[in-house]
Amino acid sequence: MTGDSERRVSALVERYVPAVRERMRASLPEGGGALFDILRYHLGWQDSEGWPVDEDAGKGLRPVLALASCEMAGGRWPDALPAAAALELIHNFSLLHDDIQDGDATRRGRPTAWTVYGVHPALAAGNAMRVVADLTLLSLSEAGVPSATAKAAAAALTSRYLEMIEGQYLDLSFEESDEVTTNDYLAMVSRKTGALIDCAMLLGCLVATNDLAAAAAFGRCGRELGLAFQVRDDLLGIWGDPAATGKPVGADIRRKKKSMPIVHLFQQANDKEREWLRGAYAADEVAGDDVERVLVMLADRGAREFVQATAAEHADAAVDAVGGLRLPAEAKADISAMADYFIRRDK
Amino acid sequence: MTGDSERRVSALVERYVPAVRERMRASLPEGGGALFDILRYHLGWQDSEGWPVDEDAGKGLRPVLALASCEMAGGRWPDALPAAAALELIHNFSLLHDDIQDGDATRRGRPTAWTVYGVHPALAAGNAMRVVADLTLLSLSEAGVPSATAKAAAAALTSRYLEMIEGQYLDLSFEESDEVTTNDYLAMVSRKTGALIDCAMLLGCLVATNDLAAAAAFGRCGRELGLAFQVRDDLLGIWGDPAATGKPVGADIRRKKKSMPIVHLFQQANDKEREWLRGAYAADEVAGDDVERVLVMLADRGAREFVQATAAEHADAAVDAVGGLRLPAEAKADISAMADYFIRRDK
Repeated sequence: MTGDSERRVSALVERYVPAVRERMRASLPEGGGALFDILRYHLGWQDSEGWPVDEDAGKGLRPVLALASCEMAGGRWPDALPAAAALELIHNFSLLHDDIQDGDATRRGRPTAWTVYGVHPALAAGNAMRVVADLTLLSLSEAGVPSATAKAAAAALTSRYLEMIEGQYLDLSFEESDEVTTNDYLAMVSRKTGALIDCAMLLGCLVATNDLAAAAAFGRCGRELGLAFQVRDDLLGIWGDPAATGKPVGADIRRKKKSMPIVHLFQQANDKEREWLRGAYAADEVAGDDVERVLVMLADRGAREFVQATAAEHADAAVDAVGGLRLPAEAKADISAMADYFIRRDK
Repeated sequence: MTGDSERRVSALVERYVPAVRERMRASLPEGGGALFDILRYHLGWQDSEGWPVDEDAGKGLRPVLALASCEMAGGRWPDALPAAAALELIHNFSLLHDDIQDGDATRRGRPTAWTVYGVHPALAAGNAMRVVADLTLLSLSEAGVPSATAKAAAAALTSRYLEMIEGQYLDLSFEESDEVTTNDYLAMVSRKTGALIDCAMLLGCLVATNDLAAAAAFGRCGRELGLAFQVRDDLLGIWGDPAATGKPVGADIRRKKKSMPIVHLFQQANDKEREWLRGAYAADEVAGDDVERVLVMLADRGAREFVQATAAEHADAAVDAVGGLRLPAEAKADISAMADYFIRRDK
């Protein structure tokens, strides 16, 4: 079953990704001054000296979902390319700022932009990436999409993007707190990760149909898929197979990531355990023996099963969200495959 | 003459500013979570505890120019309120990020947002301010502005805003260099400061007339006014009357600001002088005796006169930019008054 789902998802990725890259490159042509070198570096198109390279540029989840949604809803997927490229650019804007905020020195195996160009130039580059995304989305109406639809698309992107920023802010504030519940956590993820994936599926359907109600249903499906994806990610960050993830077991414990299993543990722990956890998490990095003890505590609380069950709930909700729409059988099969793959993937 | 110009400009400010504030408050109502407290703090609407205050919120130059342009071009100025409020919000977005980038601890006599809430929350708040601006501008078409005009307005704001970011980036890179010419400097100011003032006058005229050519002429006028304003600001930062500016003579020299007089001096200095200047500017702060010596060097090179003549050139170009349009005599008098006031003001 997982193999089947993975093949379906891979087929979608292979189908759409080259066109998305081409559309992104049209948004960010050569030249444009030194600021734009930072954008192209971050996207993996050139190295820090300006030489062309072709580095891993991430999964392209959002543009693939946008184009797949356009096609599933009966549209011509190339019509949604400006929306797909805009989403990937906005996502990369948020990564540029995230890397600064989190102090992360590497991403996708390369030094992050702020470590190469400095914090302030990278901050400005993030702002510029956001503008390039806006300009790309504005080209929807030049591509023949009716002006009212283009306007609804801009409004949807803007409001989902605001949710994403609120989610990033909540995430930062959660780092300081140990009173966060798993419900708080999921509400944060719904914004930080879910809002833009919501937007991807919403925009794809909107371009295909000009039907706001159908687009909203696709959006709800995307938001649930985003939750399922992130919750599974949290599970893999602790219990993933090192051979598949490239990270040691317990990696997210060591780096003190307040992911869903840890939020669950803090919430479920008794006073004495919580006291101990606070101490272990007060260090710069959770020590090796303490990582082991946290793993045992997580096992005692059934954290892994709880987290996986939560991911599965959201995957089911994603399928249900579009259940009321009349879609071709192939489209429903693709959505089920994505939902299934997102909660079963090993990396 | 200056008194006359000042009275005309003050009349415009008094006429429009209350309505702009009201429109901005409608964009940022109470509540919305802790992130929005940072925005309201920055805008001077509440203190760091969340209590309402009414602090100085800046000159409101951009919204005043937008509304005045709408009226001068024959429109009803309240129609341009969404554009005016959006511009002020974008301007404040850039101030939030600027304060982080420049490490400035106070603005308008209050601690900057990043010093109160931390760098990362302030960065997120800046991004949120930009979104609130976008949502505000989107409301133009709900206010009865034709959809094509609203779209042209969004495109203009986006491209001008990208110029502003490029200008900020150039400004940062100029700090590292002593090879910058006054022409480079003016090209940077045209982007960093001019682009958004261009946009203010462009949007005001566009809302009034739906006439892209007339709006572009208003935009060019705004850009020249922005240059005149900033160049005069640079002059006041060094030679302003301490009683009027609240800053000691030579303030911008002490804090190593590479403003136009200093760029001029580096460009005009001979090798030996440049060597000395490099040494003086290598310290964290230019020492008191060195400030005196820089003032003497500036006087020797006629820097003040050169800078003032440059401001005057741009003020004249502002008036010329709308010279070909058929505008009421009152409108032309208002533009001349602004141009005159911008290069004669003492604070």
